[in-house]
Amino acid sequence: MEQFHRLSRNAMHTFAVWSPKAEQVSVVTDEGEFSMQREDRGWWRVAVASAGPGTRYAFRVDGGSERPDPRSPFQPDGPHARSRVVDHSEFRWTDAGFQAKPLSSAVIYELHIGTFTEAGTFHAAIERLDHLVDLGVTHVELMPVAEFDGDRGWGYDGVDLFAPHHHYGDPGSLKSLVNACHERGLAVLLDVVYNHLGPSGNYLREFGPYFSDRHHTPWGEAVNFDGPYSDGVRRFFCDNALMWLRDYHFDGLRLDAVHAIVDTSAIPFLEQLALEVEQLQAHLGRHLVLIAESDLNDPRLVRSRESGGMELDAQWSDDFHHALHTVLSGETSGYYADFGAVSDLAKAFQQPFLYAGEASQFRRRRHGRPPTELPAHRFLAYMHNHDQIGNRAAGDRLASGIDADLAMVGAALVLLSPYVPMLFQGEEWRASSPFQYFVNFGDAELNRAVREGRRREFGEFGWRPEQIADPTDEATFQRSKLKWSELDGAEHSQMVAWYKQLIELRRRIPALTDGRLELIESECDDERRWLLVERGPIAILANLSEQPLELPMKPEWPTHVLLASKPDIRIDAAARLPANSIAVLGPEE
Amino acid sequence: MEQFHRLSRNAMHTFAVWSPKAEQVSVVTDEGEFSMQREDRGWWRVAVASAGPGTRYAFRVDGGSERPDPRSPFQPDGPHARSRVVDHSEFRWTDAGFQAKPLSSAVIYELHIGTFTEAGTFHAAIERLDHLVDLGVTHVELMPVAEFDGDRGWGYDGVDLFAPHHHYGDPGSLKSLVNACHERGLAVLLDVVYNHLGPSGNYLREFGPYFSDRHHTPWGEAVNFDGPYSDGVRRFFCDNALMWLRDYHFDGLRLDAVHAIVDTSAIPFLEQLALEVEQLQAHLGRHLVLIAESDLNDPRLVRSRESGGMELDAQWSDDFHHALHTVLSGETSGYYADFGAVSDLAKAFQQPFLYAGEASQFRRRRHGRPPTELPAHRFLAYMHNHDQIGNRAAGDRLASGIDADLAMVGAALVLLSPYVPMLFQGEEWRASSPFQYFVNFGDAELNRAVREGRRREFGEFGWRPEQIADPTDEATFQRSKLKWSELDGAEHSQMVAWYKQLIELRRRIPALTDGRLELIESECDDERRWLLVERGPIAILANLSEQPLELPMKPEWPTHVLLASKPDIRIDAAARLPANSIAVLGPEE
Repeated sequence: MEQFHRLSRNAMHTFAVWSPKAEQVSVVTDEGEFSMQREDRGWWRVAVASAGPGTRYAFRVDGGSERPDPRSPFQPDGPHARSRVVDHSEFRWTDAGFQAKPLSSAVIYELHIGTFTEAGTFHAAIERLDHLVDLGVTHVELMPVAEFDGDRGWGYDGVDLFAPHHHYGDPGSLKSLVNACHERGLAVLLDVVYNHLGPSGNYLREFGPYFSDRHHTPWGEAVNFDGPYSDGVRRFFCDNALMWLRDYHFDGLRLDAVHAIVDTSAIPFLEQLALEVEQLQAHLGRHLVLIAESDLNDPRLVRSRESGGMELDAQWSDDFHHALHTVLSGETSGYYADFGAVSDLAKAFQQPFLYAGEASQFRRRRHGRPPTELPAHRFLAYMHNHDQIGNRAAGDRLASGIDADLAMVGAALVLLSPYVPMLFQGEEWRASSPFQYFVNFGDAELNRAVREGRRREFGEFGWRPEQIADPTDEATFQRSKLKWSELDGAEHSQMVAWYKQLIELRRRIPALTDGRLELIESECDDERRWLLVERGPIAILANLSEQPLELPMKPEWPTHVLLASKPDIRIDAAARLPANSIAVLGPEE
Repeated sequence: MEQFHRLSRNAMHTFAVWSPKAEQVSVVTDEGEFSMQREDRGWWRVAVASAGPGTRYAFRVDGGSERPDPRSPFQPDGPHARSRVVDHSEFRWTDAGFQAKPLSSAVIYELHIGTFTEAGTFHAAIERLDHLVDLGVTHVELMPVAEFDGDRGWGYDGVDLFAPHHHYGDPGSLKSLVNACHERGLAVLLDVVYNHLGPSGNYLREFGPYFSDRHHTPWGEAVNFDGPYSDGVRRFFCDNALMWLRDYHFDGLRLDAVHAIVDTSAIPFLEQLALEVEQLQAHLGRHLVLIAESDLNDPRLVRSRESGGMELDAQWSDDFHHALHTVLSGETSGYYADFGAVSDLAKAFQQPFLYAGEASQFRRRRHGRPPTELPAHRFLAYMHNHDQIGNRAAGDRLASGIDADLAMVGAALVLLSPYVPMLFQGEEWRASSPFQYFVNFGDAELNRAVREGRRREFGEFGWRPEQIADPTDEATFQRSKLKWSELDGAEHSQMVAWYKQLIELRRRIPALTDGRLELIESECDDERRWLLVERGPIAILANLSEQPLELPMKPEWPTHVLLASKPDIRIDAAARLPANSIAVLGPEE
């Protein structure tokens, strides 16, 4: 591809870069150095006759070192080397007319390109798409693909936010993946990180005031969304979002950790972003969504703008996860201390924030605000996600640590929840691979700091060094790859069948996706560990204990079993459920 | 008073203090040291038989030094010494039945206790209240009175936020001042500073996590409104607000610089405060208001909660001030660069934020958001306030730097504006006293730093050291005191008469206080420097130039002059206005 570009074109190319405080900016190519002209709003520009798609280039600000383009579309040799000109109009799309399903009917599947397949590339992922279609997934969500330093990593250390990571493939192959999804009816979401940049290969500050000295994030300097020159910084991030949606045909973005975007502006960055994406949606005629990861339990993110909100489409609900995780695992350390009762899980079916103003033991303060009158579709529910697995000492999946029967119950509670369900890669077959934290920066010192930091962090919770996967060891990365051969095993294929049945049931019964939280009723017993959830004509009965149980039946309930995780479930005047089982009752169809 | 307390009472007193991380807390009085018991939510308590009103005391945390009570009701010997027990129920109020006027009909008068009178005390201020009543003022606003280090200062360096500054008087004399206001029909607002604490005498951090390491303010550590233990910190500040309103009968609070209260919580501190004050209002049966000073141009502060706002009652409008100040003074440096045209001033009559999303040259970014559909009563307008005078090198008033005729025009534009007008002490007679920045910390090194910081700051704008008033020189404080004898001079008393006429007109004509910005129309000419504002049946015509002008008259306008700043104004087919003059036309009454 690259060679083709280099030989076939001899077009004029205009280089442009924002550097509002620079005295002098130039672009360097193999043909020489070209002085750029200052234009308005801090932009510099020059047209170079010898440049075109494929041309390698870098910028030089005020006579400093060569630096890659902050908006580089591709970094074939990593974040420290020269950028490459890309012509996005060259790709031949075959997805005309594709529209993503609404979030209200979505089943999202989170995957990480590097570990989803053995090869760990965009192209290799295409081969596994039919499995997702077969499963019933509607939306694929890619963990961040922006260029980061090193040959492996989760992607949250991205530094060239407009460039796909070169170890995953080139811009064309990412487009091929999106195109292949669309051809199969799958929408594609992309995880983007706008709250900080990675620690290695970030040259943005040499170009302009991208960072704030007034706010901080746990991962480094906060982005300047509200200080002097923040209009230009906002353009950078908004244009990044628009680029992925427009040039790569993504159907939406997942916004990483928006609680770390501290912004006191009257029109916050996230609201501006939502407005601009709305405008792009109208222009392109394609449904686009923005989904936030947020630790704030603040409904303002997804409320309408007329009621003072930012009107993002949805946000992750960690409270639902934590309520489910603690009931299934019995874990209570760290932030799980705030959860653990079956009654928390029952409550989580009726309100997406368990902490909606209540005092949190873990946070040592009140937390959250009631998300009054918002439909359930504004929230995502999941039993696993990359963080909830990978941010454990051993990166072990919940479903692997618990009984398979209980994992089936967990899957059912997610897929029959009122929220938009999300799965993490391999969960559908109870994959044996962990998803451990791995990095491999070009800088050995930085790798050492990450390794030791992780040992210290988990050491404080009583883990011994040998129990903590070394994030910088290549084996940690290899171990985290999915083993697709597992799908052939009976136990694994039974689990896949269970997921398919659940997704199919969710699709069939309107009450399961109506989003109307106010219609849901629940009962539970924390002693005996059972949970009943009524969703319109559907009753979900779960035995979360190690003993068989008789659960109360309401006379008006149907006795017809739509789906059950075990064969020996019996329903008549009472419901008799074996240990760790779940049944869904509903009218005969 | 103090002696009376000490001798007359021998009641049991319960000491209480919040110190959530302490291992051990005790209270020290003249009678000895008493160990406190840990109770819930980080509170420590002990009942001491020998203590009662008048008892001097201090706390000792984990065996450290004696420290004053963070909630000390009085510090008779300054912020480093022992606190004194106060029984708020002892004061004999005679203001039963008093209710503050609504903000929509208010004229606010900002004053600084230390310089309002020669004596600079609460008691001395009482003697001047009749002048304010005569002027037509409805609300007195006291600059901060909380205990700060030193014998003089503006009050924004408060450290004992529950104690009135001992150089102004004791708790009883502050209550006497409020009571005396109420007896005269004047409401009283208090300026409170919740965004930081002063640099000297602040011992809060020894008691608990009052400060945040994640946010910063220009004046020091930010208050911890959203981190661990922030519930207790919020209680401290909410209880402070409730205390002034309940125990001192204040009718409202002015919240200093709320833009420096960085708080990412789903229920922000300011919203919680507004709710708690609303509850107190219901409980006391008295009208209470919260008014924010904000640099954010964010209508969320005053919007209703159902539309996502915090529902404060009003906020200061610096944009109106700057638009007026620059037109009257011709100044363009610093933040005045964003203003200056007569058309800005015309616009300011129709929208309280001139920057409602527009790019600001001074801020180097877009700023603000449209305050759509909010009534004008949510915003305060002023020609002077303590900051806009005192934060100048020489602390000189605008009205003293310009022609008296022009000062009359400025006063009219404020008092006939749709917003809640506010005056600064002495403005009504064009007082000759400046209002300079003054401090006198107990710490010589700190004084030196303030003095040099101010020289450096203004030096950058080209001021020579001798032009910059030394904030630590006592003469600077003395110079800033009002000279009430000036009122006897003819020029000064004419100015007072003008203010009285304007206030009286504002009270008489409903259209002037209807708050309906959408009904206002304005025209202007930046070349010839005139401004016309239509407010229902009223037309305001201002000649802001040094030449006599003929202004266009609309045929439907009344030709009756309700008020004019100069005698030789003539209205017929055209309006002929002398240089620097203003006329108000309206129906004959």
